[in-house]
Amino acid sequence: MSTFRRSVEYILRNAKLLLSNLDDDKIEDICKEFLKARRIFLYGAGRSGLVAKAFAIRLVHLGLQAYVIGETITPPVREKDLVVVISGSGETIPSVMTADIDKRMGARLIAITSKRDSKIARRADLPVILSVDLEDKDRSKLAPLGTIFEASSWIFLDGLVARLMEMKGEDEERMKERHATLQ
Amino acid sequence: MSTFRRSVEYILRNAKLLLSNLDDDKIEDICKEFLKARRIFLYGAGRSGLVAKAFAIRLVHLGLQAYVIGETITPPVREKDLVVVISGSGETIPSVMTADIDKRMGARLIAITSKRDSKIARRADLPVILSVDLEDKDRSKLAPLGTIFEASSWIFLDGLVARLMEMKGEDEERMKERHATLQ
Amino acid sequence: MSTFRRSVEYILRNAKLLLSNLDDDKIEDICKEFLKARRIFLYGAGRSGLVAKAFAIRLVHLGLQAYVIGETITPPVREKDLVVVISGSGETIPSVMTADIDKRMGARLIAITSKRDSKIARRADLPVILSVDLEDKDRSKLAPLGTIFEASSWIFLDGLVARLMEMKGEDEERMKERHATLQ
Amino acid sequence: MSTFRRSVEYILRNAKLLLSNLDDDKIEDICKEFLKARRIFLYGAGRSGLVAKAFAIRLVHLGLQAYVIGETITPPVREKDLVVVISGSGETIPSVMTADIDKRMGARLIAITSKRDSKIARRADLPVILSVDLEDKDRSKLAPLGTIFEASSWIFLDGLVARLMEMKGEDEERMKERHATLQ
Repeated sequence: MSTFRRSVEYILRNAKLLLSNLDDDKIEDICKEFLKARRIFLYGAGRSGLVAKAFAIRLVHLGLQAYVIGETITPPVREKDLVVVISGSGETIPSVMTADIDKRMGARLIAITSKRDSKIARRADLPVILSVDLEDKDRSKLAPLGTIFEASSWIFLDGLVARLMEMKGEDEERMKERHATLQ
Repeated sequence: MSTFRRSVEYILRNAKLLLSNLDDDKIEDICKEFLKARRIFLYGAGRSGLVAKAFAIRLVHLGLQAYVIGETITPPVREKDLVVVISGSGETIPSVMTADIDKRMGARLIAITSKRDSKIARRADLPVILSVDLEDKDRSKLAPLGTIFEASSWIFLDGLVARLMEMKGEDEERMKERHATLQ
Repeated sequence: MSTFRRSVEYILRNAKLLLSNLDDDKIEDICKEFLKARRIFLYGAGRSGLVAKAFAIRLVHLGLQAYVIGETITPPVREKDLVVVISGSGETIPSVMTADIDKRMGARLIAITSKRDSKIARRADLPVILSVDLEDKDRSKLAPLGTIFEASSWIFLDGLVARLMEMKGEDEERMKERHATLQ
Repeated sequence: MSTFRRSVEYILRNAKLLLSNLDDDKIEDICKEFLKARRIFLYGAGRSGLVAKAFAIRLVHLGLQAYVIGETITPPVREKDLVVVISGSGETIPSVMTADIDKRMGARLIAITSKRDSKIARRADLPVILSVDLEDKDRSKLAPLGTIFEASSWIFLDGLVARLMEMKGEDEERMKERHATLQ
């Protein structure tokens, strides 16, 4: 089997395994945080930051007030806001600093990370641990660096979107209307 | 089964199905384009643009010269450059315009889209069609808008990265050294 | 006198000349548009886009709802929104397209450009022409490309901020509180 | 005189005063750093970051290899690279961290700030202090927050561009060819 195909299967298989470990009650708790938050702030560095932005777009489609920390018009985080930080290592410096400041402001913090004992996970009100024991020889060749974590985070957040749609009574047509095209 | 869980499984199952349709020879042809290109330019709008950026980061890790169209320091596309445009509909206006200009400049064009007959697909030297027949009732609730295409593109490009690593003789350690941290 | 010093003086002198040509009544009309708009959308390509973003930050400081077209969480433009497009040539393709779409949506359009007869200027409800007869031999060496237009736009918009502060009864302290730090 | 007009004149007058304080020899030293650097990295937060990006675009036009720290494809800073950090207060946390890391990597550091005794200024190989005694009552109304510093930095860097053009023997036509349009 080609390396391309082995890589794709390795990523999909491990993402599936990893996401099946999550607890249904926790998913419900997380979704409730989104619906009760005044505003939602997303943060991540590098590829995790791109996953955060992709989720932010969907939150806007869902009619929720979402901001990406670091973009032009993002206001400061305040009490009753929800902050979601995505960091594979859970130790990325600006991510930890963002978490620290936001906790100090009285915001709620959801951390999405692959490390249970990381700084981000320990600071979070709701840590989401996306982690699985990987067969290590293959991993570095088929899914280098944060590949598994990033792909899993993307799909994890897409799963939350489906549940949030249901909870809010949204449908695809209305989401489309909230989508900024072309520009 | 919870909506979250159904959504995650739906996305993973369809991504797997869709990616298994791809032809191995085509993957090889695509990877060769990356290695012979003078420079590589990535473009996408919205969530497809984030997928493009995530791939650009990995190309830089691989030691290839990659640019994201629309970012500050991106030079103009020229002959012998490779342009990769990601667009689910294949008709997004700035994506089509980008493709047009780049073809006129004599660049090679890879289009990643879900529509075989779209403008982008027809302009491409190498079109990659990421498409699958989806069970439509579930889709709009479990994977609204471009969800399947975007998740599949992300993993498709991660698979290319694994093959490019192999072709270039790169390993994870060297890729890590090319990674800009913190800043 | 050194080239650096000649350039700085050339830019400042021409920016001053150009800005002194503006009509006070028009400035008032423009400021009123900002205060009556439901939401404000900013757009520009390249360096003009950076000027637009710098202004967006101040609008947020002023407590106005501002978005930058092209950023992650920007919603679609609707009726009663105000769109501000900055384009030196007034013919930059995505700027003209943005203007077209926004007019079709029923939004109000302010165009900031150096060309009175440009597409952008003709589409605008309120065109702002930042233009001055420049001594051409020096210009290309002391202020190449859009240098005069861009510096003038930046300062023009800073001047609007001062007037908007006054009209809204804002002060520096409150603006600071609306400023997102560090993150 | 209208508040708009008073603000514009206040900004231009103070920018002029501030920039006339700079030493010609220092400008020459700074320009030489740009020409001998292997690669140039720009960084700033908020509006200072936009000033940094506007300058990065011109460095690319001049045929220099420039990167904006924080953008997708930016590689890590290494020895012989030049880093330019713009920070009005000179104490913005990510700016100071960027400076620290880059010094540790053996890069050269130019800091553009309004505070002579700031952390950034003290870490810099070449600090550029853009500062002037401002009449304080008017300032907060006519040029709130970092307005004077930001406008002055923008024009200061445009002045460097003119000198760098001359030193490199570049002209406007060639700069235009290096400009990425539309996309």
